[in-house]
Amino acid sequence: MEKPRAVLFDAYGTLFDVYSVGLLAQQLFPGQGARLATVWRDKQIEYTRLVTTSDQGAPHQPHYRPFWELTQAALTYAIKLIEPAARSDWAAYEAKATQLMNQYRHLSAFPENREVLQALKSRGIVTGILSNGEPQMLGIAVRSAGLEGLLDHVISVDGVRKYKTHPDAYAQGEKVTGLTRQQIVFVSSNAWDALGATWFGYRTLWVNRQNQPFEELGTPPTRTATNLREVLAFFD
Amino acid sequence: MEKPRAVLFDAYGTLFDVYSVGLLAQQLFPGQGARLATVWRDKQIEYTRLVTTSDQGAPHQPHYRPFWELTQAALTYAIKLIEPAARSDWAAYEAKATQLMNQYRHLSAFPENREVLQALKSRGIVTGILSNGEPQMLGIAVRSAGLEGLLDHVISVDGVRKYKTHPDAYAQGEKVTGLTRQQIVFVSSNAWDALGATWFGYRTLWVNRQNQPFEELGTPPTRTATNLREVLAFFD
Repeated sequence: MEKPRAVLFDAYGTLFDVYSVGLLAQQLFPGQGARLATVWRDKQIEYTRLVTTSDQGAPHQPHYRPFWELTQAALTYAIKLIEPAARSDWAAYEAKATQLMNQYRHLSAFPENREVLQALKSRGIVTGILSNGEPQMLGIAVRSAGLEGLLDHVISVDGVRKYKTHPDAYAQGEKVTGLTRQQIVFVSSNAWDALGATWFGYRTLWVNRQNQPFEELGTPPTRTATNLREVLAFFD
Repeated sequence: MEKPRAVLFDAYGTLFDVYSVGLLAQQLFPGQGARLATVWRDKQIEYTRLVTTSDQGAPHQPHYRPFWELTQAALTYAIKLIEPAARSDWAAYEAKATQLMNQYRHLSAFPENREVLQALKSRGIVTGILSNGEPQMLGIAVRSAGLEGLLDHVISVDGVRKYKTHPDAYAQGEKVTGLTRQQIVFVSSNAWDALGATWFGYRTLWVNRQNQPFEELGTPPTRTATNLREVLAFFD
């Protein structure tokens, strides 16, 4: 099999630690920080799927909203779920929500990111992000993590207004790099994302950071690892 | 506004209590029954969305699998998540999974179901189910709950191989009843389902059985209640 020529990384959960908001969440909602971070993240993903599933067949994706807005909506939901008082008095919680959203703009990057991206660049491999995030949000996250010089492409699904795992979202990777899906390795820490990308036809690495089972839908990722370094094995 | 002529109910969570498996789950997985039931249910819904989102643009819905199979896959995932030993020795857990799946076939019905369906029938309203479940699974659940005589239609998304909230799934309700979406009330305990149906154009009742916030995506259901009886208010 031909060696791949590019590696595209999912951003949220893969390069950036979406649970790094947990500490602030715990300060703002004592005893409930971990739950808030989990509900927030789950709802954020759920909203991407809800709008994309509901948009199908309808012209112009009427329910699509950029990832930043869905992230905000998901946070509002999460706060209202764990703090019922927020349902009738949202004003009292707005400042906390704003603090958490600001933190989300500058998520921690995982420690091995730079080293892996540098190793790929030194071998002449094309690198990029392929994310549900919209361009502005991704730009801030990439600069904030000091990764600008190491990424050839920062690709957002916003151009097609359809979230992963819609095939049109994954197809943005082919379109922007000018490569075929067989020439691209897609890396994600999200099992559902690794699955969707595998279905699409990318070679995939699932970075199982939290020792979870893979999705039980019959299609394994090409490779599985516990951190990003394993992506280099595609080029040995 | 014209009075509606039909009421279509979601099945799982709305007429049938998906958490009624919790007691058996607690016996089989002591101390973890509630968590297992929650992960199982969340994953089941997640899988419906994953396959439908990934199928879009691809001919013939290649990733679609009937709801019973997705329910089984979700249970396998849930057991492997909470019992890591099951990942390497699934055989030791297979009998427990089978017991839980058998229980799922005969979920408890909510107590007000019969009374509300009878009241609708006595007013000449068309009644039905519009569910992600496939026909066989729905047939068993309906008979098991003694609701056969009270439902004019048992409609499954299986005919279009697309899960809610895909508009084609909701459109099955119009197609089978021969009514327009404006003439139909759709009832669901699942906030996402009430939202999808509202976007589609049904009049909707969200039965908020668990005192949760509604989805924060800008579109409220037509009505909200804590049990099914409120559906009669559409006909007052």
